[in-house]
Amino acid sequence: MAAWGELLAGVRGVLLDISGVLYDGGEGGGEPIAGSVEAVARLKRSPLKVRFCTNESQKSRGDLVGLLRRLGFDISEGEVTAPAPATCLILKERGLRPHLLVHDGVRSEFDQIDTSNPNCVVIADAGESFSYHNMNKAFQVLMELENPVLLSLGKGRYYKETSGLLLDVGPYMKALEYACGIEAEVVGKPSPEFFKSALQEMGVEAHQAQ
Amino acid sequence: MAAWGELLAGVRGVLLDISGVLYDGGEGGGEPIAGSVEAVARLKRSPLKVRFCTNESQKSRGDLVGLLRRLGFDISEGEVTAPAPATCLILKERGLRPHLLVHDGVRSEFDQIDTSNPNCVVIADAGESFSYHNMNKAFQVLMELENPVLLSLGKGRYYKETSGLLLDVGPYMKALEYACGIEAEVVGKPSPEFFKSALQEMGVEAHQAQ
Repeated sequence: MAAWGELLAGVRGVLLDISGVLYDGGEGGGEPIAGSVEAVARLKRSPLKVRFCTNESQKSRGDLVGLLRRLGFDISEGEVTAPAPATCLILKERGLRPHLLVHDGVRSEFDQIDTSNPNCVVIADAGESFSYHNMNKAFQVLMELENPVLLSLGKGRYYKETSGLLLDVGPYMKALEYACGIEAEVVGKPSPEFFKSALQEMGVEAHQAQ
Repeated sequence: MAAWGELLAGVRGVLLDISGVLYDGGEGGGEPIAGSVEAVARLKRSPLKVRFCTNESQKSRGDLVGLLRRLGFDISEGEVTAPAPATCLILKERGLRPHLLVHDGVRSEFDQIDTSNPNCVVIADAGESFSYHNMNKAFQVLMELENPVLLSLGKGRYYKETSGLLLDVGPYMKALEYACGIEAEVVGKPSPEFFKSALQEMGVEAHQAQ
């Protein structure tokens, strides 16, 4: 316990991942990882600030929080930093109109975004929507742009569902990068900007976070 | 004409690509590129040796030659070097049993290959078969192997059909490379071994070919 005390000296806030840390996704939504519901409850009773920082991009933030609450977690939408809302800020700032290659579950996050006459592509963990047809469509949009911009919500290689390992967005991002000869901009972990925005929202400096 | 004579001095054989050089694929099989039927006929009347070297891997060699003959080309199966037959030689030599992520049109080339209990993955331009489900299956096979081997029939970025640009095998090869942290072995152009086998089959040294 002394070791923990030293390790946490000066720590004021904790950033927690969600998928694979709090729960494993799968049929029927998924299941909590043993001990995680109680761990979150204890952290929230402690003096530490807590924020949830996820690359989850198959679901809107509202749907994700709804699922976590059903699984027993005490979490509200305002405590979650996720790539889709961060991407919307970037799109608005830069006047970008995306062609979306995303899961239907997260599409509502982009409801306020102009997607007419696209001048960039946004790719996220689209699951079954990573069809050959949809990949070609995204590719063709990029090839028609003078300065092709590809925003990727995370760049994970794969993740674990209860049914086994599944490809994440990263491999498909790499596919489009290679096809078009471009480099994607990653929104989400491990981008430093993404962590910084989560810390800002928590009101904690980087050296004070764990 | 003098310039051509100088350029071709010492040349004894000509390797010709097929897709995008002799014909463009598309609805109903495709169409010959203007002048190419006559160009092949003239080459075959000349003293030069001619061989066709293709990365086409959606069709068996027999089906490809059948299509070309219908389009008016004077070509026989024995004159074509293609990745699928070259891959079968490699599989047999190395005792590899592939999981096939290939187009149904080329599957017959692997009829004599043992595909039980796979110890490698063979990926080719699979077209519509590049579904999320099929990509996950190939990924999972690779992840279960101690020494994952991925053979890719070519590594083209994209190709032109009459309907527009379509993703080739290369982007999907890159996706699996990234997901598994491995490097694929490319069978087909631009692999030097592939060109060498085409020259051998033509009976011409590299410096005598154009």
